[in-house]
Order: sequence, then C-alpha cells, then structure tokens
Amino acid sequence: MDEIQKNLLKEIANLHEIPVGAYNIRTNGKSSARNTTENIDIVTKEDKSGIDIIIKPNTKNESVHIPVVLSQTGLEEVVYNDFFIGENADVTIIAGCGIHNAGDAKSQHDGVHTFYIGKNAKIKYVEKHYGEGDGKGERVLNPVTIIQIEEGGYMEMDSVQIKGVDSTVRTTKATLGKDSTLVIKEKILTHGNQYAKTDFEVNLNGENSSTNVISRSVAKENSKQTFLSKINGNAKCMGHTECDAIIMDHASVSAIPEITANDIEASLIHEAAIGKIAGEQLIKLMTLGLTESEAEAQIINGFLK
Amino acid sequence: MDEIQKNLLKEIANLHEIPVGAYNIRTNGKSSARNTTENIDIVTKEDKSGIDIIIKPNTKNESVHIPVVLSQTGLEEVVYNDFFIGENADVTIIAGCGIHNAGDAKSQHDGVHTFYIGKNAKIKYVEKHYGEGDGKGERVLNPVTIIQIEEGGYMEMDSVQIKGVDSTVRTTKATLGKDSTLVIKEKILTHGNQYAKTDFEVNLNGENSSTNVISRSVAKENSKQTFLSKINGNAKCMGHTECDAIIMDHASVSAIPEITANDIEASLIHEAAIGKIAGEQLIKLMTLGLTESEAEAQIINGFLK
Repeated sequence: MDEIQKNLLKEIANLHEIPVGAYNIRTNGKSSARNTTENIDIVTKEDKSGIDIIIKPNTKNESVHIPVVLSQTGLEEVVYNDFFIGENADVTIIAGCGIHNAGDAKSQHDGVHTFYIGKNAKIKYVEKHYGEGDGKGERVLNPVTIIQIEEGGYMEMDSVQIKGVDSTVRTTKATLGKDSTLVIKEKILTHGNQYAKTDFEVNLNGENSSTNVISRSVAKENSKQTFLSKINGNAKCMGHTECDAIIMDHASVSAIPEITANDIEASLIHEAAIGKIAGEQLIKLMTLGLTESEAEAQIINGFLK
Repeated sequence: MDEIQKNLLKEIANLHEIPVGAYNIRTNGKSSARNTTENIDIVTKEDKSGIDIIIKPNTKNESVHIPVVLSQTGLEEVVYNDFFIGENADVTIIAGCGIHNAGDAKSQHDGVHTFYIGKNAKIKYVEKHYGEGDGKGERVLNPVTIIQIEEGGYMEMDSVQIKGVDSTVRTTKATLGKDSTLVIKEKILTHGNQYAKTDFEVNLNGENSSTNVISRSVAKENSKQTFLSKINGNAKCMGHTECDAIIMDHASVSAIPEITANDIEASLIHEAAIGKIAGEQLIKLMTLGLTESEAEAQIINGFLK
C-alpha cells in the first residue's frame, strides 16, 4: 500500500495501521488484506463482486473494518456487501470509500450494502466518503444501503461526506420490525460544482418501531444538494426527520421530506431549515480576532461536529 | 333561491341575506344575482365561463362576495374568475362553493381564480367549501388559485373545507414580488372515503418577500389526505410552512413539503407533525363529564379553530 492509499485509509476510516479485529481492505478493485475472527467471518462472493460479512449470534464488542480505496484513475466498480448480524450481537462496522483521482477519467465506486440485523442485535455503522486528487476526472460515489431490522434490533448509521466527492446519490432504504430502532446521522459538505443527493426511506412496519433521521449539511460555492427523506408509519410507531442546511455563495439546497401515517398510532414529525450563517455569529467571532473566512470555517466545523 | 340554496349560502359565506357591497351569486351554473359598486366592477367573461372582478386603486374597506351554489345533481362546470386588485386597495373577497347533491350523478365545480394584486394592495381572501345531500352522486371541488403579488402587496388566504366534499384537489400557485407577503391558512377535515389533496407552490422571487403557509387537518374514518407544499426562495426572502394533522380511525395522511433555497439570503423553514389525539387530552375532558366522542369533537373543533 503506497502513501496515497495510506492517506485515503486515514481519511475514511481513521486507520493509521492495520485495524484490530475483522477487516477487509479493498484497493483498486481487489481485496488487498483480510482478517477474520472466531465470531466474524468474511467470505468473497462468487456470483458478483463483493463480500459477505457474517457475524455470529451474541458477538459482543467486536468491530469490522471494510474500507475501500481507489487511487487508479478511470476505475468504475459496483460492489455488493451483505452483512448478516446474528441475534444479540453488538458490533461496530466501519465502511467508507476514498478516491484519489490524479487523472482525467472518471473514478466511481458504487457500494451496495445490505444489512440483515437479527433479533435484539445492535450495530453501529460508520460510513465516510472522501475524494482528492488534482486530475480533471470526476470522483463519484453512490452508496446504497438496504437495512432490515428484526424484532428488538437497533442500528445507528453515521454517514459523512466532507470533501472532494463530485457527485453522489446516497440511497438508504430500511424496513423495521417490532420494537426495533434506526438512527441515521448524516453530515454532508459540498463545494465547487459538486452535487449531492440523499434519499432516505424508512418503513416503520413493526409495532413500537422508531426512527430518527438527522441531516446536517453545508453547501458552498456553486454546489447543489437535494435531501429526500420519506418515513412511512405503518404501525404504532414514532418517526422524526430533521434537515438543517447552511447555504453559502451561490449554492442551492432542496429539502423534500415526506411523512405518511397509515396507522392511527403512528406519530411522525418533520423539521427542516435552510439558511445562511447568522450575521451575529460571524461578527461575534470576528470581534474575537478571527477573519471572516476563519469565523465561517469555525461555525461550519461546529455545525457539522 | 330555494331553502337548500339559502342553506348552502349560509354554510359557505355565512350569508343570511343579500350581502352588502359588490357580489355575484352563481346558482346551478348561472349568475343569479349581481351588484357592483362605484369602485368594484364585475364583468361577465365573453370567451369562457366566469367573471372579471375589477377593483379600482385605493378602494378601501369594501368587500366582494362571489359564492357558488350547486343543488342540481350531475352538474359539472369549470369557471374562471380573474381578480384585478388596483394599487393601494384594501379589500376582502369571500368566495366558496357549496354543493347539495341529492341524486346519483356526480356534481363538480372547478373554480380557477387568478389574482393580480397591484402595488401595495392588501387583500383578504376567504374560500370555504362544503358538501351535503344524501344522494350517491359524488361531490367534487377542485379549486385552483393563481396569485401574482406586485411590490409591497399583501394577501391572506383562508381556505376551509370542513365537511361533505368527496374529492378535492386544491392547487395554489403564487409568485411574489419585492416586499410582498402571502399568508395561507388552510383547514381541512375529511371523513368517510373522502380524498383531499393540497398542492401549494410559492415562488419568493422578490427581495424581502415572505410567506407563511399553515395547514391544519383532521382525517377521520377511511379518508386520505396528501399535503404538498413547495417554497422556492429565489431572492433574499423568508418562507415558513407548517402542517399539523390529526389522524383517526383508519385514515391516512401524507405531508410532503419541499423547501428550496436558490439564494444565499433565502431563509426557509418547514415543520410537520402527524399523530392521533393525545390520550391525556381525551382523559382530561372525559373526567369533566364528556363522553369519548364529545371529547374528541371538542378537541377537533379547538384544533381547527
């Protein structure tokens, strides 16, 4: 693994060295390193590109890292990763993709991740997307996340895209069983001429299922963002979706939530706000000695924390 | 005018007798009474069904009533009414449609109302829809409202549909100039197998334009409601949209707002909440001696007030 690839790994998975626990590192379209544990197996798919991650019931406090790095310009791939989380497991899964594109051809990684979360299992899923490189080639990432949570299951999904991705369509579709919970936290920053579209759909099918979908985004320069968030309450359930966006320069942001109650016991709430950085906030930081752009950067960092 | 028609007039326009000021009463597809004033002219359109309502600049504290009643089963009509509101006018316009359908054929009134609101003019527009009659024929109302507000203009639109309309698609599209304001207050109650769709679009094109779109709705029994509300911030502007819905029985409600900021000085907010009547509220009223259905009725009345 060269320096560029190591840096991508650091950006997307905060990895400075080989991780502990189970992992599968994919580099330029190939699996470059893998480790399995007694409780976590990783198996290469035979019918298509991708892996199966199989976590035994009752596995606790273990983690799986499955980062993807692309440093070869012009590489386009679709990868299917399926996660089978056994009953009562409690694990952390760290995915993410970093693209370094120094050439003029498009580099694209579309990861389709499907989660089968067993009864009373609990997972934290962290996914970070990052692009860099001074080529003219586009850096494109289209993550698809399919989530199925069984009775009593819990998932927290943290999705972050801070920098360097030219175009992204981020699709997440979840179906929740009885007493299960899904928490989604998304953070996006776009700049230049970037485009980011987020499309969440959560089906609250099980009694006492609940979801909380929170998006915070910053759109700078000429970038465009679209936020779709659909929650269907099909049983006694609680759903909340929230989108806060800061626009700067000539950017534009659309927030299009959709909440549908098909059951009298469904309780659904949506909130969205789009606006620029408040002038008073800027002035306050500037009186403390910061320049305007330093003050803006500090406010944005705080907003996306 | 017979008793049925008089009752419809009372329901939709709170009119017990001939109104003061300008009016045009349309009964079963024909203009049945009209009055104009020095400042307000009403002219029958020659190219299609409908009237032009022309309000002179600086007209103050006058009102126009243009109720429509249908008591003949099977009547279907599309009517175009254009409102030309002169500069600095300050008037109240009361429209609305009541259908009594005692037969088995569908009765339908589609009113297309276009408002040209001049500089610094101020109008309050009240529109009430109501259906009754024990025939099997459907009662359908599809109001379309097109609004164009010039610099400094102000419009408040109160739209109410409380009872008896089997199917309604309510479309409102507004374009706002500099320093203008549009306030929309909608109240809808559906029951039985009724369907109601609301589709608001407000384009905040002028500097310092603002809008506030507030919807409160109750869906009972097997009725379905869809609420669309789109606000486009294309200049320095403020937009707020809010939808609160109560669902009961087997009803379903979708809220699909869409806020888009195309200008860094656009500040847009949306809120939506769908849920059933809170149990504590019911219990509180029931301990005061009300039955459950009386308590529900009282809560709904308060909510739609």
